Amino acid sequence: MIHNFNAGPSILPGEVFEQASRAILNFNDTGLSILEIGHRTPLFQAVLDEAIATAKELMQLDNDHEVLFLHGGATTQFFQVPMNLLDDNAKAAYLECGVWGSKPIKEASLFGTVEVVASSKDKNYSYIPKHFQIPEDAAYFHYTTNNTIEGTQMHFVPETNVPLVADMSSDILSRSMDFNRFTLIYAGAQKNIGAAGVNMVVVNKHILGKVKRRIPSMMDYRKHIENGSMLNTPPVFAIYVCMLTLRWLKKQGGVAAIDKINHQKASLLYDTIDNIPVFRPTVAKEDRSNMNVVFVMDNPDLEKAFLDLCKKEGMVGVKGHRSVGGFRVSLYNALPLSSVHALTDVMKHFALQHA
Amino acid sequence: MIHNFNAGPSILPGEVFEQASRAILNFNDTGLSILEIGHRTPLFQAVLDEAIATAKELMQLDNDHEVLFLHGGATTQFFQVPMNLLDDNAKAAYLECGVWGSKPIKEASLFGTVEVVASSKDKNYSYIPKHFQIPEDAAYFHYTTNNTIEGTQMHFVPETNVPLVADMSSDILSRSMDFNRFTLIYAGAQKNIGAAGVNMVVVNKHILGKVKRRIPSMMDYRKHIENGSMLNTPPVFAIYVCMLTLRWLKKQGGVAAIDKINHQKASLLYDTIDNIPVFRPTVAKEDRSNMNVVFVMDNPDLEKAFLDLCKKEGMVGVKGHRSVGGFRVSLYNALPLSSVHALTDVMKHFALQHA
Repeated sequence: MIHNFNAGPSILPGEVFEQASRAILNFNDTGLSILEIGHRTPLFQAVLDEAIATAKELMQLDNDHEVLFLHGGATTQFFQVPMNLLDDNAKAAYLECGVWGSKPIKEASLFGTVEVVASSKDKNYSYIPKHFQIPEDAAYFHYTTNNTIEGTQMHFVPETNVPLVADMSSDILSRSMDFNRFTLIYAGAQKNIGAAGVNMVVVNKHILGKVKRRIPSMMDYRKHIENGSMLNTPPVFAIYVCMLTLRWLKKQGGVAAIDKINHQKASLLYDTIDNIPVFRPTVAKEDRSNMNVVFVMDNPDLEKAFLDLCKKEGMVGVKGHRSVGGFRVSLYNALPLSSVHALTDVMKHFALQHA
Repeated sequence: MIHNFNAGPSILPGEVFEQASRAILNFNDTGLSILEIGHRTPLFQAVLDEAIATAKELMQLDNDHEVLFLHGGATTQFFQVPMNLLDDNAKAAYLECGVWGSKPIKEASLFGTVEVVASSKDKNYSYIPKHFQIPEDAAYFHYTTNNTIEGTQMHFVPETNVPLVADMSSDILSRSMDFNRFTLIYAGAQKNIGAAGVNMVVVNKHILGKVKRRIPSMMDYRKHIENGSMLNTPPVFAIYVCMLTLRWLKKQGGVAAIDKINHQKASLLYDTIDNIPVFRPTVAKEDRSNMNVVFVMDNPDLEKAFLDLCKKEGMVGVKGHRSVGGFRVSLYNALPLSSVHALTDVMKHFALQHA
């Protein structure tokens, strides 16, 4: 039994792996592989249609919002967002609350003025700034909803009239929220949506077409909307895996149902960390992420012994990111509660041995 | 028995499908899916390293040339190339010999001056212009080596001191050529390299870093070289399929060996078309593509009957592109000679019935 706590690419539902594996040999009883069918066939159109419709349904999106599946990762969106939304002489507001939240600031500065409204860089991004002002003349306000590396999560949506843009790569579809509040949402697929190599972008179409610059076709959201995510050959297989994963999530009861389970998983792990003196959480309690749980040891000499024990118990992806150290455990949608029980059992066992 | 003549995504070797299918359930006996392993693990690094090394070996590249696997398709390269190579006040020369050759011209014009040295648009791109002048002050000369839609192929490399840039999406690794003659080569993977959702870019590193504009990180070839195609989470599975396909090609004897078989396949099909009066080729004889064979019927009323017969015989992808009509048969590396024999048998049978 393997427990996969990888930060991304990460665990997907077992039935998704099984269906994807079969489709590579024989897709929908066509005798053809999903890898060799034309993307402009009714066969693939049905896959794309279901992926888009299921995403819209799971997020309860209104008709102003379009769902796109685009080439690239969130890092592509770091520049595609300002290229489409930020004019040379305009200003965008950014919140900097993680390593991944600092990168889009750098990219946006190539296109217009960037105002960083607050940063938690002073404390290694271990908390989420709360009392920041979003300038009313900003073209948009950008933030990262969940910080994969540091293990923090925004548990509120800022109150503002400025259009909201969010990188939701590591917590999209993991918790109930009003997705229609956002003008643009993007997420690399390889955590809660599917396989690496595709981006999901949700955009309120009324924000588009306002900047003066000429945008390359592949970077223009309007062109992708007009062409139904098929401006060119899309990443067929990656979209197929998204469709299967979204279908699985719907079958689990959707976002509200998975939100409840994700809370159980996170509570179990944080309670264990809080109650075992060997381990210590690194982030402010109110900003703890339910997706990525980061913790360290007071005695770092024990780290290797704990990682060895985890490995022996079939646990993958427990080592922390090099910039924080310690441990990071990711609890994405597809990770079963039983894997968290297995981990907390190992932690308790380890604590008894080393207390 | 299915014969897949799709223009792309297209047939890949059977052993690639089998290995990819298995890796989705259990990659390299890890008990993990290829879709859930971390991209910064030695496991995936070995995949990427083998893909790059095999590509370099198959193309016999010198040390000036780097191989990158990037997000997106060739359409992404249509603007990424001029963004990296063409300054605002500089000029690039383009040859327009197909629908796909006209698109990069439009994208390049966003970045600098574009001079179209020749075009075959006047005759629906049914031939390759031969006697064109490449201006010596051009930053680079861009052309499409094989035109997937129209079924033409450049059987010569232009003599010039201007750096050569080529879109080789539909014939890369299908024929022997001096790849080192090119300053930059790009190709969407979904024909001869692997699965849709990744680009292979071959670039002579000495051409980079010369334009004045600031380039977004994800679009900067230098950043991808520095980071070994891992600037962000790469399209892991698509790269894995490329690695398997490149490994297969090496096992077949490499480019020279597949070139020979590709010639046999194309000769068999063109000879059949030339010798059966029911069918008629659409392109200039000396410019015929060995990858995409385009032909029509003198009597278009028979088209449906022929397509029905092909379908009955398990043949997929024979219908022509809507802009040309008639038929298009793609003969990519993975298509066996036996499939061409099967098709030519059907053509002869049909001709006897309808002569």
